[in-house]
Amino acid sequence: MIVGVIGLGLIGGSMAIDLKRRGFADKVLGVENDPVASTAALKMGLADEIVTFEDCVRGSDIVVVAVPVGTAVRMLPKVLDIFGEEGNGTKIVLDTCSTKSQIVRSVHYHPQRGRFVATHPMAGTEYSGPWAAMPNLFDGRACIFANSEDSDPQALKTVEGLYDILNMRPIYMNADNHDVHTAYVSHISHITSFALALTVLEKEQDEKHIFDLASGGFSSTVRLAKSSSDMWVPILTQNRDNVLHVIDTYLDKMKEFRDAISSFDEARIEKLIHEANRIKKILR
Amino acid sequence: MIVGVIGLGLIGGSMAIDLKRRGFADKVLGVENDPVASTAALKMGLADEIVTFEDCVRGSDIVVVAVPVGTAVRMLPKVLDIFGEEGNGTKIVLDTCSTKSQIVRSVHYHPQRGRFVATHPMAGTEYSGPWAAMPNLFDGRACIFANSEDSDPQALKTVEGLYDILNMRPIYMNADNHDVHTAYVSHISHITSFALALTVLEKEQDEKHIFDLASGGFSSTVRLAKSSSDMWVPILTQNRDNVLHVIDTYLDKMKEFRDAISSFDEARIEKLIHEANRIKKILR
Repeated sequence: MIVGVIGLGLIGGSMAIDLKRRGFADKVLGVENDPVASTAALKMGLADEIVTFEDCVRGSDIVVVAVPVGTAVRMLPKVLDIFGEEGNGTKIVLDTCSTKSQIVRSVHYHPQRGRFVATHPMAGTEYSGPWAAMPNLFDGRACIFANSEDSDPQALKTVEGLYDILNMRPIYMNADNHDVHTAYVSHISHITSFALALTVLEKEQDEKHIFDLASGGFSSTVRLAKSSSDMWVPILTQNRDNVLHVIDTYLDKMKEFRDAISSFDEARIEKLIHEANRIKKILR
Repeated sequence: MIVGVIGLGLIGGSMAIDLKRRGFADKVLGVENDPVASTAALKMGLADEIVTFEDCVRGSDIVVVAVPVGTAVRMLPKVLDIFGEEGNGTKIVLDTCSTKSQIVRSVHYHPQRGRFVATHPMAGTEYSGPWAAMPNLFDGRACIFANSEDSDPQALKTVEGLYDILNMRPIYMNADNHDVHTAYVSHISHITSFALALTVLEKEQDEKHIFDLASGGFSSTVRLAKSSSDMWVPILTQNRDNVLHVIDTYLDKMKEFRDAISSFDEARIEKLIHEANRIKKILR
């Protein structure tokens, strides 16, 4: 099987490593427009060849679109257009984006819609680029299949096989539900980390040694603030409505804490912390 | 040296383990009012004996006050009162609390003030109680000495030796500055985690499977929400003014994100994320 990977960053690059190593891909064709990243990806052996977008789509059996979601929304119809021109009906494209509603909407009425499988492998780190790619990134994590009833059964089965090779646990979900859920358990975490980083960095301008006191708890809470704007600007705008709704709930919770602390209401602070502690039952 | 440890939780218990193991303490006298915790602490060997508060203070060369800060503020003058009654002038008490202004204020005019060393060993986990105590907890971390000029030089030197045995790096600081700094790099992180946990737990009431999608990033950001109210209620009320100030800055940053996302202002979101990314330079 020839696998084309468009975008050899953390996700695309890590997929390329394991699909080749584990025998799913006989050959990996990579597309990477950034020249520095492209050179690095070749040196690191993430792809066997770096080719153009069109050569990748024409030359691969499965195309993996692993670019930021704004780019993917514009790219996906073009991939399916080329499939349509070729007319052999056997090729497959999948995406790996973190929001799914606009992605599935962008090709909903495309005549080749069945050849597309919308997925979200829920794995990653706060780092990005080919330098961040690593083996075994996906092992044991969940992979969402969004609106899988709109994909041809054979295309779906092949992509399920691909994620099985990556040791991922499949979860099937409506694209809109996916975007609500990820706003809560992923997108808001990034925004709170960004805001925390901004808060402390602002103070650092006056207090140079403030980070001497930063403990493991602070590092853990602010870790996601290292995440790249290339990835996160499109996620936050594409999932705008859900994200705004979660931010508003979050702001309400912060204000409850603020009011309780402001009025020295120890019983109220204690109650809020006890409620928050229920997260113990959920996190391992 | 006989070391008395009042409060055999995460911090007191972990100190007891390493001070005994590394030969600083010949004997550890423990005080633990909670009967379940007290039995566990004895079984785990955190202390050689469990004694009363008064027997601990009278029987120890160094007393470690490792209880929540609200309790410590009331307890510390009583320890110094007993030192005064004994009148030998060689005994030392230190506290390990996460806020320092009210602690130092509570004994500022006490005739035995010199026998007290105010410290904050910056180590810990989100767990609490004797069950959370562990060896090597403090190795390589920072320990704040607050207003150390108010301690007798011999008392200070002995406590510096104690933390040296624990492999901690000393930082000397004014108590008020300490409380400003920790509001930024520790207290706000806990509040943002509590608020995040409350936000997602509220949604979970309708969406039972929301945590299926929780990734490593979410776990990292929400980890501190497991922290105990016994410890955090007094920290947040004692450090109220600083904490409120930081919450307000943080709320402003969240609102900047909200506005930028709400108006699809990609350039503004990108700028905010780039600013937040500067945290990379600070975190290892």
